[in-house]
Amino acid sequence: MPASFNTIGIIGRVKTSGVKETLNTLVDYLLHLKYNIIIEKETAESLHNLHLQTIDREHLGKNCDLLIVIGGDGSLLNAAHTVINDETPVLGINRGSLGFLTDISPSELEKIKDILAGKFILEKRFLLTSIIKSDHTVIGTDDALNEVALIPGAIPHMIEFEIYIDDTFMCSHASDGLIIATPTGSTAYALSGGGPILHPQLDAIVLVPMFPHSLNHRPIVIEGNREIRIIVSPYNTTLPRLSCDGREYINTVAGCHITIRKKIESLHLIHPLDYNYYETLRSKLHWGKKLHYTE
Amino acid sequence: MPASFNTIGIIGRVKTSGVKETLNTLVDYLLHLKYNIIIEKETAESLHNLHLQTIDREHLGKNCDLLIVIGGDGSLLNAAHTVINDETPVLGINRGSLGFLTDISPSELEKIKDILAGKFILEKRFLLTSIIKSDHTVIGTDDALNEVALIPGAIPHMIEFEIYIDDTFMCSHASDGLIIATPTGSTAYALSGGGPILHPQLDAIVLVPMFPHSLNHRPIVIEGNREIRIIVSPYNTTLPRLSCDGREYINTVAGCHITIRKKIESLHLIHPLDYNYYETLRSKLHWGKKLHYTE
Amino acid sequence: MPASFNTIGIIGRVKTSGVKETLNTLVDYLLHLKYNIIIEKETAESLHNLHLQTIDREHLGKNCDLLIVIGGDGSLLNAAHTVINDETPVLGINRGSLGFLTDISPSELEKIKDILAGKFILEKRFLLTSIIKSDHTVIGTDDALNEVALIPGAIPHMIEFEIYIDDTFMCSHASDGLIIATPTGSTAYALSGGGPILHPQLDAIVLVPMFPHSLNHRPIVIEGNREIRIIVSPYNTTLPRLSCDGREYINTVAGCHITIRKKIESLHLIHPLDYNYYETLRSKLHWGKKLHYTE
Amino acid sequence: MPASFNTIGIIGRVKTSGVKETLNTLVDYLLHLKYNIIIEKETAESLHNLHLQTIDREHLGKNCDLLIVIGGDGSLLNAAHTVINDETPVLGINRGSLGFLTDISPSELEKIKDILAGKFILEKRFLLTSIIKSDHTVIGTDDALNEVALIPGAIPHMIEFEIYIDDTFMCSHASDGLIIATPTGSTAYALSGGGPILHPQLDAIVLVPMFPHSLNHRPIVIEGNREIRIIVSPYNTTLPRLSCDGREYINTVAGCHITIRKKIESLHLIHPLDYNYYETLRSKLHWGKKLHYTE
Repeated sequence: MPASFNTIGIIGRVKTSGVKETLNTLVDYLLHLKYNIIIEKETAESLHNLHLQTIDREHLGKNCDLLIVIGGDGSLLNAAHTVINDETPVLGINRGSLGFLTDISPSELEKIKDILAGKFILEKRFLLTSIIKSDHTVIGTDDALNEVALIPGAIPHMIEFEIYIDDTFMCSHASDGLIIATPTGSTAYALSGGGPILHPQLDAIVLVPMFPHSLNHRPIVIEGNREIRIIVSPYNTTLPRLSCDGREYINTVAGCHITIRKKIESLHLIHPLDYNYYETLRSKLHWGKKLHYTE
Repeated sequence: MPASFNTIGIIGRVKTSGVKETLNTLVDYLLHLKYNIIIEKETAESLHNLHLQTIDREHLGKNCDLLIVIGGDGSLLNAAHTVINDETPVLGINRGSLGFLTDISPSELEKIKDILAGKFILEKRFLLTSIIKSDHTVIGTDDALNEVALIPGAIPHMIEFEIYIDDTFMCSHASDGLIIATPTGSTAYALSGGGPILHPQLDAIVLVPMFPHSLNHRPIVIEGNREIRIIVSPYNTTLPRLSCDGREYINTVAGCHITIRKKIESLHLIHPLDYNYYETLRSKLHWGKKLHYTE
Repeated sequence: MPASFNTIGIIGRVKTSGVKETLNTLVDYLLHLKYNIIIEKETAESLHNLHLQTIDREHLGKNCDLLIVIGGDGSLLNAAHTVINDETPVLGINRGSLGFLTDISPSELEKIKDILAGKFILEKRFLLTSIIKSDHTVIGTDDALNEVALIPGAIPHMIEFEIYIDDTFMCSHASDGLIIATPTGSTAYALSGGGPILHPQLDAIVLVPMFPHSLNHRPIVIEGNREIRIIVSPYNTTLPRLSCDGREYINTVAGCHITIRKKIESLHLIHPLDYNYYETLRSKLHWGKKLHYTE
Repeated sequence: MPASFNTIGIIGRVKTSGVKETLNTLVDYLLHLKYNIIIEKETAESLHNLHLQTIDREHLGKNCDLLIVIGGDGSLLNAAHTVINDETPVLGINRGSLGFLTDISPSELEKIKDILAGKFILEKRFLLTSIIKSDHTVIGTDDALNEVALIPGAIPHMIEFEIYIDDTFMCSHASDGLIIATPTGSTAYALSGGGPILHPQLDAIVLVPMFPHSLNHRPIVIEGNREIRIIVSPYNTTLPRLSCDGREYINTVAGCHITIRKKIESLHLIHPLDYNYYETLRSKLHWGKKLHYTE
């Protein structure tokens, strides 16, 4: 990765209020700073300046040194999937309030100048990759930055499956399903399901049972380089589905094996130098601020 | 550590039913195998064989190559504190049902022969060490294999304090207190408080809030080499206490700083070769066994 | 309801091991006691005695004074739906371990003699009835002994809806859904979702949020005679479904109103005189038994 | 209770910012409306008008028709204990943000005029009364508007006790303790401990286990007229304490019996006619507001 960037890709969820204005301000600012700009096609439709190079979403990663995403954590999550195989660095501009992944405010565009000049923190966030096999034939595969979730197809509370860690049997479950989350995903769906927060620098994966029959099941945190295998019972009355980051769904088949492990490529997330994870936590979860005695 | 052991120390909670019998059987077995044996003084009172060398609890660690503890997880926890500065390897014999730390059953004494012959797994479990300072003067210090807990002195639900991680402010709390647990302690008090299970090999610490005023507080897992600092508010109406492994208590003073970090010495826990952490989890928490389709 | 019963209906989940034996033993026993017996058609296929009157499941309630269900809580739940409009008393014989609804063991058939002689406890358990309306047109209705659940259609974690209690706005939700449970259902799906246990005699309904976005949402218990109305957002990306007792599903439409209230008819559950709800709780949830000091 | 009030008692936590101003404004307003006023002694020290009748806190209830409390929920809780045996109606003025019990804002003093003219909602909130007996001798008794809590004396996580409901054994516990809360208290300490919210009009009591050893223990809600008895094990290593509303503490003795039941007298809480419990819930717990589609 170059210390500074030459070609900047831009993508944004332009339907969201404010994003359009931020997009145009950003483009003008970058042009003024003489950077090459390349805009994702749909995003480009909202531009005042109609003379910029545009590109399909799927070719974005290969054609820029830095991808700037304007929007919320969901937009950055989607963009991350687009560029993950090229490991293009990604910078997120939020829509006015701190996101876990989008930590530059639209009112702080001058921070981008510093970042483009090489003053930034590069944080690698790992993804999970999942493969579903039935009788040794691959029937589906997908990646997740937040979480891989085994969820019921039609009737909740009816999935039976076994969990193995590095080929060692851990336990069987009768439940609504299982969330397997990265540290990045620990503040997303897994948190709603009662999972703990994992610091982003922790090399760990958390397994959060969904509505387990037995009250003794609890979230368990394992090392990040472990391989997780789920064997879906051939006797379930409904076929569960596998969902990565809540984007698309793969229907499983009875008795299939699902293998989940860390993906080789990681998300290269760019932060300004004053980035502070705990500040984001406090802001998003309304945690207690400094007490007066140390202020 | 030698591949095999010469002098074996033995300690047991002899008041517990069954421990006395196991103790005598073990001693006879080890004498038969021609090992040197040294018995903790109080434990020795329950012996049939009265000609063995005895020693005070506090000198046990320095004078044996291996310490065998007969009893439950609580007994092993106490023994671990005794030998921790010498890092003497510790082996636990339970009282008939699997413990998290005592994984040899009284009926499996032959496994000890293998272990003494060098066939074992050595697992290092880290401890936390805590120091309380007031105006830069140390007012207390203690170690914990399971957890360091800040708990209320008299009135629950009334402690205010701030948490810092490596000098970065994380958040303030108004709560009953905070449990800071190791992976070993994650299946003890922290689990009752709603914390996640941490795999013993995960290098991590979990912070579990106790009855927080705000419903937004959740357990958070951080890297094991982080330094945690708690600053107790000078304005609390009751003085909280610090408890390590629920053994003794240190009264804090208003405005004190509590620093918690990984201890340099670790517990050297000895397991038989067929040790399986997940089997213990399933046994202790009644987790689901293998389903018939993979048996 | 008559103090004693003349015609006894019998239904059982005969595919389950043990049920067939219990069924035949029960039939012989009742014939010996000279009662009229009427058997549900599918159940009858497993009978040795082929000369008994059989009947369709849906006509069972109208044609007997007492319905005996052999099986687990799920079997009794299904049977309850069959007879609810006739309020036929129902007695459950379990498959060897206590159920919440089936509290006579196959080895205690003599208890049935007492019950048939009028020595029993009659406990009324209320049901919920739900109606879905879109533009004032009813698009579905169903009853629940355990719970009415609003669940996602395809993508979890994406339903937005409002909750009203007796026409007063309570709150809006962004979540996976909502479980609305009776005391009977409080030990079923709602418990897995983190809901409290409601004593069966408590006239109350509990609302348990499923995986809420906000960590501040908690189960709330309201009076049993309240009317609950859910207004599903017209802007959800997936259409949620309504499930009563996890049996069948009704697809909702955007912007529909779902009204849930206590059903007029109740389940008339028959217990032996020594029935003890807390014993069932202890047995099913492995709660602590009497300590030695009061034994 | 008279439809309108003649003598108004006033009490406030005058050390809290803003309370002093509200106090003087309120007094002037009531004098202008020609009401008799009687001020609690400590509160009177903050008055500009020094010619008003003052009275000790303990005689307040008997000498006024209505008690107005200025402060937060804690102030009203304390005032409620003062007047409970006289069942004097109580009205709470908060310090600028909605409390669960203090629902008139300092800026809405005109609402008081309506209330004094008889336009109000009277809501009765029940209290719990607890008696500790050892060998049939009473060793302590106290009342609770929020909760009766059995808590550890020195070492948490070590109390063993049995719970009986109306003389029927429910279960034994090994835990940090037990919170027994009213609907009023369900949004206080019990909520931090994982208990459900009980609507104030629900006639029910919730038992919330504190850090139970077994993960199978859950909050249980029972009818409000049940009598709860706790038998503390004679073998606990620390003597637990009983705390009512977190105010004072009673030390228990080994083997004592604690009986908890609804108090005959109730708190008579006065609300303005536009009182809305769910609005308070939304405000205090940051629950979701109306969605745009029904606004």
